[in-house]
Amino acid sequence: MTQQFGIIGLGVMGQNLALNMERNGVRVVGYDRSDAARQRFAGLAAGKAMQVADSAAGLVAALPQPRHILVMVPAGAPVDGVIAELKPLLAAGDLLIDGGNSFFMDTERRAQALAADGISFMGLGVSGGEEGALWGPSMMAGGNVETYGRIQPLLQAMAAKADDGAPCVALLGPRGAGHYVKMVHNGIEYGDMQLIAEAYDLLHRGVGVDVATLHELFSEWNRGELASYLIEITADIFTHVDAETGQPLVDVILDQAGQKGTGKWTSQNALDVGTPIPTLVAAVNGRLLSAIKEERLAATNVYPAPAATFAGDAAALAADVRDALYAAKVCAYAQGLALLRAASQEYEYGLNLAEAARIWRAGCIIRADLLDHIAAAFKQQPDLPNLLMDADFRQALLAREAAWRRVITTAIELSIPMPAMMASLSYFDSYRSGRLPANLIQAQRDYFGAHTFARVDKPGVFHYDWHSENS
Amino acid sequence: MTQQFGIIGLGVMGQNLALNMERNGVRVVGYDRSDAARQRFAGLAAGKAMQVADSAAGLVAALPQPRHILVMVPAGAPVDGVIAELKPLLAAGDLLIDGGNSFFMDTERRAQALAADGISFMGLGVSGGEEGALWGPSMMAGGNVETYGRIQPLLQAMAAKADDGAPCVALLGPRGAGHYVKMVHNGIEYGDMQLIAEAYDLLHRGVGVDVATLHELFSEWNRGELASYLIEITADIFTHVDAETGQPLVDVILDQAGQKGTGKWTSQNALDVGTPIPTLVAAVNGRLLSAIKEERLAATNVYPAPAATFAGDAAALAADVRDALYAAKVCAYAQGLALLRAASQEYEYGLNLAEAARIWRAGCIIRADLLDHIAAAFKQQPDLPNLLMDADFRQALLAREAAWRRVITTAIELSIPMPAMMASLSYFDSYRSGRLPANLIQAQRDYFGAHTFARVDKPGVFHYDWHSENS
Repeated sequence: MTQQFGIIGLGVMGQNLALNMERNGVRVVGYDRSDAARQRFAGLAAGKAMQVADSAAGLVAALPQPRHILVMVPAGAPVDGVIAELKPLLAAGDLLIDGGNSFFMDTERRAQALAADGISFMGLGVSGGEEGALWGPSMMAGGNVETYGRIQPLLQAMAAKADDGAPCVALLGPRGAGHYVKMVHNGIEYGDMQLIAEAYDLLHRGVGVDVATLHELFSEWNRGELASYLIEITADIFTHVDAETGQPLVDVILDQAGQKGTGKWTSQNALDVGTPIPTLVAAVNGRLLSAIKEERLAATNVYPAPAATFAGDAAALAADVRDALYAAKVCAYAQGLALLRAASQEYEYGLNLAEAARIWRAGCIIRADLLDHIAAAFKQQPDLPNLLMDADFRQALLAREAAWRRVITTAIELSIPMPAMMASLSYFDSYRSGRLPANLIQAQRDYFGAHTFARVDKPGVFHYDWHSENS
Repeated sequence: MTQQFGIIGLGVMGQNLALNMERNGVRVVGYDRSDAARQRFAGLAAGKAMQVADSAAGLVAALPQPRHILVMVPAGAPVDGVIAELKPLLAAGDLLIDGGNSFFMDTERRAQALAADGISFMGLGVSGGEEGALWGPSMMAGGNVETYGRIQPLLQAMAAKADDGAPCVALLGPRGAGHYVKMVHNGIEYGDMQLIAEAYDLLHRGVGVDVATLHELFSEWNRGELASYLIEITADIFTHVDAETGQPLVDVILDQAGQKGTGKWTSQNALDVGTPIPTLVAAVNGRLLSAIKEERLAATNVYPAPAATFAGDAAALAADVRDALYAAKVCAYAQGLALLRAASQEYEYGLNLAEAARIWRAGCIIRADLLDHIAAAFKQQPDLPNLLMDADFRQALLAREAAWRRVITTAIELSIPMPAMMASLSYFDSYRSGRLPANLIQAQRDYFGAHTFARVDKPGVFHYDWHSENS
């Protein structure tokens, strides 16, 4: 097993991964451009097998060959900057790992550029936030089998362990495969969070369920099929009170969500790959709509407040929301995994979907009991075209379908927007429709642009002269 | 006015634009790599002020300086190929116009590269299909004022004329502005077509309205507020019968819609610009879902057919669908125009939204009576932040809101997917919500990733220690 590791970039993630490595028996040399970060790291290092270097060159010099260096700096230009600085210092056989949220195409480019000098480059998606980095993240690796073998024991020791004891790390494929899977993981995370937010919005703003009751509901949901990290922390969030105002803290937080690159990249790339992921896209759009707070406030001043009020049974609706949330979540995962399948072909990653789902079971933000079932479904049928085609998930969706439709209908009546919940339902309704109205779209396209069409009854490409043959 | 024009690329669009130019008093020299295309053009040229050149060099030699050359070849590498061939043959002051559906960033790059040699480059979005090219397209120009002035009289003569006689062409801004506006035009076109397809699907597949009645409905709609080219051709499509089977032709067409680059680009670019355009994105996703026909057929074999049947009044539903279609369409245009506004800032295009809407009123695929009102709204209030904030459109939406909600609720009951119709409604409901549930998303992000949040009651950036301060 690797005995020494260098880490460049000593922010919270880099520092916590260093502590995790050290706890697992590795001597760590750290470096950061920032004096403050180096000093903090030096303080942490006291009494541990950790040391701080004064420069990138100093870090490289302190490591035996073949060297292993983890780069934990922001995605984009900073990664290229570190690589440019390190490249002349490294030797053939050294391994450079990018543990940030880099765009997978950048990782492809960097791996290719470094390969010319015999330097191995690995894109490593790391999920789990600060706590995960310290105590056990989920890690999605892309690179070559040989260099992965050198660090596999360490990564397995550092990684989160699922309930069955299996470490949540794997080499998912070559080149950018790890960062690709991490990107889609984050896209699913956006979907999950938006669906939870919509459930909260319907119950809280639409129906008036108070924060204490929401805590109880989410706690109860976390003991059932929805059990997951995000439901768990949501339940907990509802217990926190703002010390200044005495209000529930969640009520004091501004409804303007930020977004980083990965959700956007997933949505953009899915269009390149040609895979529909409407729930994940709706989640990104939900954040964009949240961001134009001033415009929304101006709109509330000129639009009348919605008139409808909820006259039903709030407890029954809450049970329906639980079912709808599960069904919509399954569709979000179905979309994400279908994207992985298509991308695996497009980029020749050779992804094993069961393995991707397996390493998401612990350590990462989307960890959920549901992932045990997803991993099992793809293990049993590696060529399952879509999660919706798994017999168990099909039954699960059909059992919740009526509740799901009731929830969205109620939201429509109450003017509560549920874009992601609706996107999941229309994905479900589209996927199971043998016939969709795209025949009319093809007729229109042939009408105005001679784009041609196919027929239902025989092969071939046809054009019809809509103008002269009018009946 | 320009007396001579070169056209490279003599496909149907190039050839029809040549005929349009010639009809308007310009001598046209055409060239195409393909022998067949040149021969066809030579045939068309007989008796007209048109001639065919044997090479690009021959075309350039046949034109007086400063030259005016329109390139009508497929977007992407072919455009770069033509430019590379022409560049050494051209002189300072010459004007090269790309009339294809090029990606606006490519146009920016090409304009910059040619400017070094004093060659003007104009990106010209041309909409209206073959017929439009021949008899009057809508044209969206991007370039500099001086060179535009040289061809403005010709473009105005060639362009479609709105009911008030104004030609549907304008210089919308510098560099890629014309192609950008054309891209968004096409994104809106995707949205329009998908909304119409969903209306058709609900009435036809969901409720059983036959093709003859659909023809009557769409014809009636085309005489009211929905009056537009797409509604008009849809009404006509329903009258055509397949000669082979005797079935309505629309029923014989396969429900698998193709897509070209512009809808995808609009969706991807909107994420870069940060503007939500959910209806337009839903339309692209609708086509992607249509494309996986085999998967959908497999799904229908294992999922039970939807059990619900429509028990209401089909005529009343049809009236509701008309209202819903109008409201959803307004939201689609609101999104597209909001994107133009944001992009104008991002890329410094200085777009005039009233002018963009004005030149879409005739000649192009999305031409519609609605655009008179949109152009008027932005003319009256050039800094209108969103179409939904215009008083007349607000009243129009509020008057149709109840019908819109009934339509989607009915579709949900009947398992008919209406992703674009739903996306428009949730856009409307989000836009008018002063408070959205993004506060919970911000709490979650701060919980797992220390992403910080803003507060509703005071400025600043806050982080809360969710782990240690648990109440």
